Amino acid sequence: MRKILNTPEGFVDDTMEGIIRAYGDRVQLLDGDKRVLISGYPRRAGKVGIVTAGGSGHLPLFLGYVGQGMLDGCAVGNVFASPSAQKMANMIKACDSGSGVLCLYGNYGGDIMNFELAQEMLEFDEIQTTTALGCDDVASSPKGSESKRRGVAGIVYAFKIAGAAAEQMKDLAEVTRLAQKALDNTRTIGVALSPCIVPEVGKPTFSIQDDEIEIGMGIHGEPGIQVSKMMTADQIAVMMVDKITDDMPLQQGDEVSVMMNGLGSTPLEELFIVYGKLHSLLQEKGVSVTMAHVGEFATSMEMAGMSASIIKLDAELKDLLHAPAQTPFYTNHNK
Amino acid sequence: MRKILNTPEGFVDDTMEGIIRAYGDRVQLLDGDKRVLISGYPRRAGKVGIVTAGGSGHLPLFLGYVGQGMLDGCAVGNVFASPSAQKMANMIKACDSGSGVLCLYGNYGGDIMNFELAQEMLEFDEIQTTTALGCDDVASSPKGSESKRRGVAGIVYAFKIAGAAAEQMKDLAEVTRLAQKALDNTRTIGVALSPCIVPEVGKPTFSIQDDEIEIGMGIHGEPGIQVSKMMTADQIAVMMVDKITDDMPLQQGDEVSVMMNGLGSTPLEELFIVYGKLHSLLQEKGVSVTMAHVGEFATSMEMAGMSASIIKLDAELKDLLHAPAQTPFYTNHNK
Repeated sequence: MRKILNTPEGFVDDTMEGIIRAYGDRVQLLDGDKRVLISGYPRRAGKVGIVTAGGSGHLPLFLGYVGQGMLDGCAVGNVFASPSAQKMANMIKACDSGSGVLCLYGNYGGDIMNFELAQEMLEFDEIQTTTALGCDDVASSPKGSESKRRGVAGIVYAFKIAGAAAEQMKDLAEVTRLAQKALDNTRTIGVALSPCIVPEVGKPTFSIQDDEIEIGMGIHGEPGIQVSKMMTADQIAVMMVDKITDDMPLQQGDEVSVMMNGLGSTPLEELFIVYGKLHSLLQEKGVSVTMAHVGEFATSMEMAGMSASIIKLDAELKDLLHAPAQTPFYTNHNK
Repeated sequence: MRKILNTPEGFVDDTMEGIIRAYGDRVQLLDGDKRVLISGYPRRAGKVGIVTAGGSGHLPLFLGYVGQGMLDGCAVGNVFASPSAQKMANMIKACDSGSGVLCLYGNYGGDIMNFELAQEMLEFDEIQTTTALGCDDVASSPKGSESKRRGVAGIVYAFKIAGAAAEQMKDLAEVTRLAQKALDNTRTIGVALSPCIVPEVGKPTFSIQDDEIEIGMGIHGEPGIQVSKMMTADQIAVMMVDKITDDMPLQQGDEVSVMMNGLGSTPLEELFIVYGKLHSLLQEKGVSVTMAHVGEFATSMEMAGMSASIIKLDAELKDLLHAPAQTPFYTNHNK
């Protein structure tokens, strides 16, 4: 196992320790719990809270989006495993300032079960909560059964848009509506060249041949829809645009933002090569592109590959996307 | 060769194309030249220019630091190869606004030769230039022969500090002095777990055994000082602090910034695990740490491994480090 770590069992705690040592002036552990991170940025009284949760091993997802104008809190479990309902409940409580809390997370069974339990636990505390689920991976279930799709990198757009709405002091119903609208207008498709290794398992859970590429694989190694002979960057970009626009048609005059996300061990150069082609394919359709995101946003540790997410914007979503945000891992430095 | 690209020959042009499509509202090609990037951010009249150059394959280095409060221009060559003197001269000319230009780059023979030639070419144009060379890699030559050392990730601190000085309208001599002071107070040490592949070569230029780690390897695959059996994250952090403080002693009351840099395919989780230990080792010595940099700053495409850079700060360097900066790849979002 080619990983730099101390012990497989300590992987998550040691990671969290490093985050706190690096950024402890801006984000904090909740009551010292190494699985719950909350924002330490100044916060307006009465702002709606936004929280997420999920398995570890996806940095910057989810911890990296705790800050100002995005998330107020994040709970993480072991690698690829949901955190407990109790930790989620503690987090929701800490992130409520009387206006309620949006639970915004990916569509995975364990996370749903634990969040629902946490929300029940909080009914006595009279904390109002709502839920919005990321289901952006078009490869994970066909059109017509969108609610069965996995949530992957595209949820970052919902964090950004809902976070900006909360920062503008919109109420819980409105923040939830905007999160859902962002999710409904986002699609993602990924390709993988190599698997990753869960530290406590110690070996890859599947393999990809050296001359092959897997299309539509999930960020926990869930099987994709097709294994293909290795493709060029341009072919990958064409396939990505096709898969996404088959599902969410785009037409002349539409405006989108594109996230080209590295899955962990993909060089930035390769992300830009695919991004360039994908951007020009959209332009050829008369679709304009604003606020490119190119880098790592949702990884699977050392998995090689990339995903493209496209969010279709209207004036309302665009304004919120462009609003200021800052976390130790993400800064909106666009106009 | 497990790379996502179109052709090995097109690797650099395609990368540059992607950068321009993503960020063309903020950075531009100089006269359409796909090897010279200049800042499109607003610029104060009479500001000293700062430029760099080097081989491709190190993103975010060097292109990623073109923006406001850092570099005004960057020329790149093919992968791991210097750009031509003519391109450097064009860039320097474009980045001069009458107050001269600092050429701030890594200590490599090809870059030095071409920059010196470019500076000569510009003597007729009466453009004043100065030079400062990054020599931060402690593994590349012993104490006493610092001027033979390679420049690696630590040069990003000099970009940041010199860039802030220029933004404060300091003159060329002062900007150069501060760049040199930043360089003189920065040390880097790296470890590698795997090599990378130059696209036009198509195979790794060396290999590392599966149970081994190479200490002190350069970002072009230059040999390190030691091949060791695989180490734990804590052992790596101890070794890194030892190698750096043997060369640049740190004592109680000193203040530093630390850059934990992934070489291309190292998960963020692993960077934080080593960062956490390294930070606590410094604290145990009574050294305080400000403004952590954890992520990818200077890579070697898909090389696995990481480097630690430490810059020793006084009040002057600290102020400049904390000053605002923004490029498409780097934002100072610290206090």
